[in-house]
Amino acid sequence: MTSPGRRRAGIDVGGTKCLGVVIDSSGEVLEVDRRPTPRHPDELIEVLAVMTEGFGVVDSVGVGVPGLVTREGVIRASPNLFDVRDLAVAARLSERLARQVFVENDATCAAIAEWKSGVAVGRSDVVVVTLGTGIGGGIVADGRVVRGRNGFAGEIGHVIVDPSGPLCPCGLHGCWERFASGSALAARARELVTGGGGHAIVTAAGAATDIRGEHVESAARDGDAEALAVIDGFCRWVAVGLANLANVLDPELFVIGGGLASTGDTYLPAIRRWFGEMLYAPELRPHPTIELARHRELAGAIGAAHLAEVEADDGH
Amino acid sequence: MTSPGRRRAGIDVGGTKCLGVVIDSSGEVLEVDRRPTPRHPDELIEVLAVMTEGFGVVDSVGVGVPGLVTREGVIRASPNLFDVRDLAVAARLSERLARQVFVENDATCAAIAEWKSGVAVGRSDVVVVTLGTGIGGGIVADGRVVRGRNGFAGEIGHVIVDPSGPLCPCGLHGCWERFASGSALAARARELVTGGGGHAIVTAAGAATDIRGEHVESAARDGDAEALAVIDGFCRWVAVGLANLANVLDPELFVIGGGLASTGDTYLPAIRRWFGEMLYAPELRPHPTIELARHRELAGAIGAAHLAEVEADDGH
Repeated sequence: MTSPGRRRAGIDVGGTKCLGVVIDSSGEVLEVDRRPTPRHPDELIEVLAVMTEGFGVVDSVGVGVPGLVTREGVIRASPNLFDVRDLAVAARLSERLARQVFVENDATCAAIAEWKSGVAVGRSDVVVVTLGTGIGGGIVADGRVVRGRNGFAGEIGHVIVDPSGPLCPCGLHGCWERFASGSALAARARELVTGGGGHAIVTAAGAATDIRGEHVESAARDGDAEALAVIDGFCRWVAVGLANLANVLDPELFVIGGGLASTGDTYLPAIRRWFGEMLYAPELRPHPTIELARHRELAGAIGAAHLAEVEADDGH
Repeated sequence: MTSPGRRRAGIDVGGTKCLGVVIDSSGEVLEVDRRPTPRHPDELIEVLAVMTEGFGVVDSVGVGVPGLVTREGVIRASPNLFDVRDLAVAARLSERLARQVFVENDATCAAIAEWKSGVAVGRSDVVVVTLGTGIGGGIVADGRVVRGRNGFAGEIGHVIVDPSGPLCPCGLHGCWERFASGSALAARARELVTGGGGHAIVTAAGAATDIRGEHVESAARDGDAEALAVIDGFCRWVAVGLANLANVLDPELFVIGGGLASTGDTYLPAIRRWFGEMLYAPELRPHPTIELARHRELAGAIGAAHLAEVEADDGH
């Protein structure tokens, strides 16, 4: 006989779809629901309410949203939600559902998913890095989620690793995600092709303008030396950013999530090797381990579902 | 009538001297003692014991030490203490004095001093950056000191801000302290002189090889355009690192301490201006403020004296 346990709902708001789950006390996924993300803020709140109601009786409701999210659950702005500005998701959904709703940044949710029911269970000092179109992050320090004064901690994709580097859409130069995200990987491969190389990568992609990270991976798996070099250079940049985070936070574990984690075995050995060469004072410390995330597409939603527990841990 | 309050002892172990204080409950300094730092580890422990005993009856004893310090109070290694390796300061001094002794990294102590009795009193999310020969740091997140898994958090001087930048004595390239420490400022000025410029700076220093940060400051105060440009470029690099820390930690306040803080008015306006240009999403957030440390030479010792309180706050 199994205990029914708690049922916790979590929804991850993405640029194209809202992905909802119900998890049990152990973090296992009991239900999944997907809906298109509406553009209008009022419709977004309504979709989140309808999804939650569709899950029936649940013990808590959490939502993960992209972009800069305040501690009060307000989306200040989000590159993936163009019509959303200063949207008080927590307050409005809470009012609509007549219950408490927890809201966090989606990368922080992905981190919480790994910490509460993924590869970081039981760890106290963890940084989760989501490598996708950009780079997001979530930080656990001494057993607590680091949110920062405004809730904007973990915007690690915009750590500057070369102030004279390429312009980032954020307006700054040389942000880490210009070197170490999925789009950076593809951009590096396209540069190679522009320079007259990268034939195997072009063949995999069909056309130079269609090159994405998966085409570089595909050529690399076939042993193409140029693709392997692009991936190695990419992994070096990933390691630069991880080493920087190690210097600031001294975590015991890095978890790599996001889109690139699904084929993470392509990257992990080189990231680990470069990281070992870039860690400060490597001979004087146990090295943080680097693992792939357990949760994939559902990470944000699972983490959102765990938010109520995290708040309770923090004594809020 | 004043309450006698608690008397807390703190000692800051420097490369040349050990600086001890007794503070009262409000953080005011009641006594100061200075002794040369002995090279031999056994002698260092003995000097710390004698200094503590010299303070008479105290309610707690804390020690700040340079270098990588574990959570158990072991100095793994320290660039400023050449004969010290794996020295269990906390355990040995505790045994010698037959009482509990708290030990922390000196930059973390300087941060605690600002947080407990300096410019960061009452703040929850603070980063203290000590700009001296190198760069050290201490982090408070959500009202707790961030130590990291091993106690090595806050090694912010070795955040890589240009992987193809100059070699750092740590063996890596382009560490922040190669651009934004007191030694970096002097190095930049010497480069200027090597290139045939910087006459006013050489005049202030007497000889090119003797140039230190204070000579650049002196020439800048006299209105020398080259010195002003060196300082402006230096402040830009300081701001790069602060912006990076803002992205990771989202503090409400940065405190600039260390040797350069004593003439910090020379730097603060330019650091603030560059920081405003390098902060991610500046229009969507309250900007962290940047202030100079209140405590100067005694910061490490005062912070060490506050360690017992911090441990008590954390529930240890």
